[in-house]
Amino acid sequence: MRPSGRNPDQLRPIRLTRGFTRHAEGSVLVEFGDTRVLCNASVEDRVPPWLRNKGRGWVTAEYGMLPRATGSRTDREATRGRQQGRTIEIQRLIGRGLRAAVDLEALGERRVVVDCDVLQADGGTRTAAITGGYVALADAIQTLLDKRRIRRNPLHGHIAAVSVGIHQGMPVLDLDYAEDSEAETDMNVIMNEAGHFIEVQGTAEGHAFRRTELDSMLDLAAAGIDELVAAQRLALER
Amino acid sequence: MRPSGRNPDQLRPIRLTRGFTRHAEGSVLVEFGDTRVLCNASVEDRVPPWLRNKGRGWVTAEYGMLPRATGSRTDREATRGRQQGRTIEIQRLIGRGLRAAVDLEALGERRVVVDCDVLQADGGTRTAAITGGYVALADAIQTLLDKRRIRRNPLHGHIAAVSVGIHQGMPVLDLDYAEDSEAETDMNVIMNEAGHFIEVQGTAEGHAFRRTELDSMLDLAAAGIDELVAAQRLALER
Amino acid sequence: MRPSGRNPDQLRPIRLTRGFTRHAEGSVLVEFGDTRVLCNASVEDRVPPWLRNKGRGWVTAEYGMLPRATGSRTDREATRGRQQGRTIEIQRLIGRGLRAAVDLEALGERRVVVDCDVLQADGGTRTAAITGGYVALADAIQTLLDKRRIRRNPLHGHIAAVSVGIHQGMPVLDLDYAEDSEAETDMNVIMNEAGHFIEVQGTAEGHAFRRTELDSMLDLAAAGIDELVAAQRLALER
Amino acid sequence: MRPSGRNPDQLRPIRLTRGFTRHAEGSVLVEFGDTRVLCNASVEDRVPPWLRNKGRGWVTAEYGMLPRATGSRTDREATRGRQQGRTIEIQRLIGRGLRAAVDLEALGERRVVVDCDVLQADGGTRTAAITGGYVALADAIQTLLDKRRIRRNPLHGHIAAVSVGIHQGMPVLDLDYAEDSEAETDMNVIMNEAGHFIEVQGTAEGHAFRRTELDSMLDLAAAGIDELVAAQRLALER
Amino acid sequence: MRPSGRNPDQLRPIRLTRGFTRHAEGSVLVEFGDTRVLCNASVEDRVPPWLRNKGRGWVTAEYGMLPRATGSRTDREATRGRQQGRTIEIQRLIGRGLRAAVDLEALGERRVVVDCDVLQADGGTRTAAITGGYVALADAIQTLLDKRRIRRNPLHGHIAAVSVGIHQGMPVLDLDYAEDSEAETDMNVIMNEAGHFIEVQGTAEGHAFRRTELDSMLDLAAAGIDELVAAQRLALER
Amino acid sequence: MRPSGRNPDQLRPIRLTRGFTRHAEGSVLVEFGDTRVLCNASVEDRVPPWLRNKGRGWVTAEYGMLPRATGSRTDREATRGRQQGRTIEIQRLIGRGLRAAVDLEALGERRVVVDCDVLQADGGTRTAAITGGYVALADAIQTLLDKRRIRRNPLHGHIAAVSVGIHQGMPVLDLDYAEDSEAETDMNVIMNEAGHFIEVQGTAEGHAFRRTELDSMLDLAAAGIDELVAAQRLALER
Repeated sequence: MRPSGRNPDQLRPIRLTRGFTRHAEGSVLVEFGDTRVLCNASVEDRVPPWLRNKGRGWVTAEYGMLPRATGSRTDREATRGRQQGRTIEIQRLIGRGLRAAVDLEALGERRVVVDCDVLQADGGTRTAAITGGYVALADAIQTLLDKRRIRRNPLHGHIAAVSVGIHQGMPVLDLDYAEDSEAETDMNVIMNEAGHFIEVQGTAEGHAFRRTELDSMLDLAAAGIDELVAAQRLALER
Repeated sequence: MRPSGRNPDQLRPIRLTRGFTRHAEGSVLVEFGDTRVLCNASVEDRVPPWLRNKGRGWVTAEYGMLPRATGSRTDREATRGRQQGRTIEIQRLIGRGLRAAVDLEALGERRVVVDCDVLQADGGTRTAAITGGYVALADAIQTLLDKRRIRRNPLHGHIAAVSVGIHQGMPVLDLDYAEDSEAETDMNVIMNEAGHFIEVQGTAEGHAFRRTELDSMLDLAAAGIDELVAAQRLALER
Repeated sequence: MRPSGRNPDQLRPIRLTRGFTRHAEGSVLVEFGDTRVLCNASVEDRVPPWLRNKGRGWVTAEYGMLPRATGSRTDREATRGRQQGRTIEIQRLIGRGLRAAVDLEALGERRVVVDCDVLQADGGTRTAAITGGYVALADAIQTLLDKRRIRRNPLHGHIAAVSVGIHQGMPVLDLDYAEDSEAETDMNVIMNEAGHFIEVQGTAEGHAFRRTELDSMLDLAAAGIDELVAAQRLALER
Repeated sequence: MRPSGRNPDQLRPIRLTRGFTRHAEGSVLVEFGDTRVLCNASVEDRVPPWLRNKGRGWVTAEYGMLPRATGSRTDREATRGRQQGRTIEIQRLIGRGLRAAVDLEALGERRVVVDCDVLQADGGTRTAAITGGYVALADAIQTLLDKRRIRRNPLHGHIAAVSVGIHQGMPVLDLDYAEDSEAETDMNVIMNEAGHFIEVQGTAEGHAFRRTELDSMLDLAAAGIDELVAAQRLALER
Repeated sequence: MRPSGRNPDQLRPIRLTRGFTRHAEGSVLVEFGDTRVLCNASVEDRVPPWLRNKGRGWVTAEYGMLPRATGSRTDREATRGRQQGRTIEIQRLIGRGLRAAVDLEALGERRVVVDCDVLQADGGTRTAAITGGYVALADAIQTLLDKRRIRRNPLHGHIAAVSVGIHQGMPVLDLDYAEDSEAETDMNVIMNEAGHFIEVQGTAEGHAFRRTELDSMLDLAAAGIDELVAAQRLALER
Repeated sequence: MRPSGRNPDQLRPIRLTRGFTRHAEGSVLVEFGDTRVLCNASVEDRVPPWLRNKGRGWVTAEYGMLPRATGSRTDREATRGRQQGRTIEIQRLIGRGLRAAVDLEALGERRVVVDCDVLQADGGTRTAAITGGYVALADAIQTLLDKRRIRRNPLHGHIAAVSVGIHQGMPVLDLDYAEDSEAETDMNVIMNEAGHFIEVQGTAEGHAFRRTELDSMLDLAAAGIDELVAAQRLALER
């Protein structure tokens, strides 16, 4: 029995609210149950120095957590003067994931930054950020298409992410904080709509996991991603 | 005529949503029109080193702006490695304002941090933060009273803040971004419920302002503060 | 009775020593009693990046305190690796104040930096810095006029600053450290020679202050500024 | 055909030189072909603050690259004032991997830091660091056993790591820089001697990879890890 | 002929003004011609962590240069966020020099920090700082003796410093900026009153220098130090 | 008797291994007994901003110490976020020393960076770094001559460095850690092949040293440098 009463293969309620703030080209509040992440995609007409004059664009992500998004307050990274290792690891993962959905040449020499700020955390913030960030990115790119600043849609398919793990010996989908904090294995999976892998990151927290356990987790992830892509489609059609 | 069509002495629609996130002891989303600031008050059972063993507590504030809270994206301060001068100036102002509402001895040796994070900016973020931060602070202190960890309520009255300015020669209340960016004078006023001053910060942006202009602005501020205190009362009664 | 024996409306002895060091275009040691601040104005033939090619100049200030300017030694900010919040707040105030005296278009595309370094502190360092910094700025601008690098004097009138406060229930002018550390209200006022306001910053340290108290303090400030402007005139004529 | 002429399932020549420097409790130069990493394990009789008085120890890793370990010089991180995101990601991976081999309670309240410094890079520095770092860690722990400072060996089995990838459509083991820089998929696998997973990190660089490709890569990794564990055993027996 | 018209073995006019500021236990303005350095010695009743409970004290120095102490403005180190290499090198030299004059056990567990801030630079700031810093240190130690907080004078003799160099082929004493900037060799010498060496730092700026040149420079330095020690004695007797 | 059993004028065994790593234009492992420093010289086709378009090149050095190069682990400077004072002092010394061997105009507008990383420390790391760095620099310059990117050899003679000191009252050459940590005087001498001085840095650690002691130390240094230059020649001829 999971702490939340969910079935092993059951996602938390997923909500994707587009236009959550008004300035960003794409602004999506994504909720995986009690995890709430605000994903703002900003389009800038310049690329990082190492990409200049190469005819290609760039997609990157930054991740932050409001100090009291968590059960006890964590120090503000701006005050400490540096981002924590965990933050850097996560924002690099989100950036790699989202870039996998974009034809950077079709984007042209511009940069899209997807800021993922966690308003409330309950496990799975990075997978929520990727899933919601994709919708914000799609909205931002749509503004470029609408203004005819790019001709061809640089998005080549959906990208979504979900966590899977082994909790009390049982493979489960989309862990909340209660499960995550006592899981034996924790895995984040990013896949595209065709069910192929963009990124797989699995870590044994307790004992090492077996190939059969890995296989079960990947099966759960694939099914979860299907539902998340469907939710993204529904949100984007509205 | 003001850009928003408001009367000179008219506030924007004010909303104070308590319990906006679930972890903080006090969590309030404050809206002054399109300006939206999330104020989370956290109680910690320790004080800064210079206050240890003095039988007194501390109230402080931190201020942040999501990178895309504004019309064009601003760099994330955690990435730049330091808070900007403007940020530091604002969070010191919020902290001083909120401390003025609290009897630090009655609070006991604990610290309340009020994190004010701007989700969407349209002028007046610091005054919204103080007005909303007060309600978050009141909620956080109430949890201490409810748990009987303090006996006497350390809050001695309401604190609220509002901006006033001279826009196209006319004194106006609660400037939005359109007004603020072309105001000749900009003043932030923090007052208590008795109509006395906690802090006055007025700056001539264009030409120097006269004593009569100062007087008109302070009259507007006093009336605005009355309305804000009433809104705080209403929110806290719900 | 004030600790120093002064009347409520009496400034400390004011000294403005021009040419205190030999390298800066303007170099003034300002003394408000035992508070001594060295103000060096440097002219640079470039402007900050965001002002380039706009035909306008810039005036800015930096503030520092020698580690042993105070009763007990404070850490050197260069060693700590960052300026304190108080320092940033003060140097922004000085910069805004001095800019209010200058027609930035007449200055042309150049920058004047006014470095205000406190050699000895006894309260009121920021108001001394503004009052003395104005004279250093005037000297630096005069070198540009003398060399015919600008045609029209960009200074449009005097700027001076003074502190006022409520000490033991009585409004007083130009607080020294003994008064400042136990004042109920502390207010810094920057005015021009016409008696109009550039900046007003008043903070209740103890209890909130009333409108009538504010009015008395502003009256004291206006009289004090008159004397300071006279002292500036005298110094500049020598 | 691989650029190096190796078979798809063939490791580069592996060398593990113990006692490479004389100060560290464990000092191993590990070579995976031309990749050379110096792994120094240091024992310290204190734990991080958050672990104090809990009766448990800690194992952590730091990773660095000499500025000219690579084809063109990279800036020294000590000079830039911060570690790059890639560095932080790698050292966190090494630390998690090595901790998985250690019973932290049997280690007692002490910390082992494994410094992995790349003297020469040719792909696979992080997997070499884990494989060599394990041997340095084993040597460091042996000094504690020899001095009878711990009674029970906290190491519960071997840990090794290897990279696998898809290069020109073919799954290959232990990529060198020539392969790595043009691989379509890159995966790092950490396993224990029983063939169970400690960590799996796979990233699509070009197009997304399929489940069958993932399976082939994991098979290659398992065989490679077997050889690496054998090499570790041989080195530790000498 | 030297630019200043001095003889090769002639110091600039030396002035040592004690009590220049009022807060520090020792406060000396030292002038070597147009070079002016304010040396403030502060006594603190604690030692650095690595010296605690060893019954010994510490003497250290910090060096700073006001931004416009020089011909063109240099960035403020507090703003840049770090001290420059040159600054660190100089303050370490001053600290080593002054420590050589003090019996750290007789000082007891306290720290004396000598802050040397250059108000105006014209060459030789580090040697002026050591020579003046010694007098400030002596004054600070005298306050401890006067208050009977230490019994035995920890100062065991005078320390002074001077620069020597080869300018236009000729060995010269106490170089000013005009000479220093075109000297072929630049050497700083710290000696005690007995004419023995505390520190020698000589650098060839143009071509390498010979042993005979070194010898001539050391002879000049020894004579210069004699005069500086006499000036220190005179100042301390007043 | 020296701790190592060496004669007072005896160097430790010197080894210079060229081509130690494969990427750098010059890569030398230098060993002074148990002190081992890897010196990598990198050629870059750009100069620092302040040298641009002046037709001259630049030679600079950076110094680092692996965390466990020493008896007890020192924190990694990249993690601490800044280089220590000692590091900065040393790398500035190495840079000045190596620049003295190079005609910067003949080098053309390019920069050579010599990275000196200490793999194992046993005293004298800075003098080993200069002596080995010279050989790495010579190899890097040779690649420029071989590719005919410069016509004239910018190296004008050899540079080497050695430490001397007073240990138990006796002047000794090339101190190892055991001697260095208890020496009364420590001096680093950089000379060219003609026996002229590039830099002399002597520090009294215990009592001040006399002119006759200085003379003895310089004699020892001159003889040691002769041997080191011979070793450099031999290494470069191989």
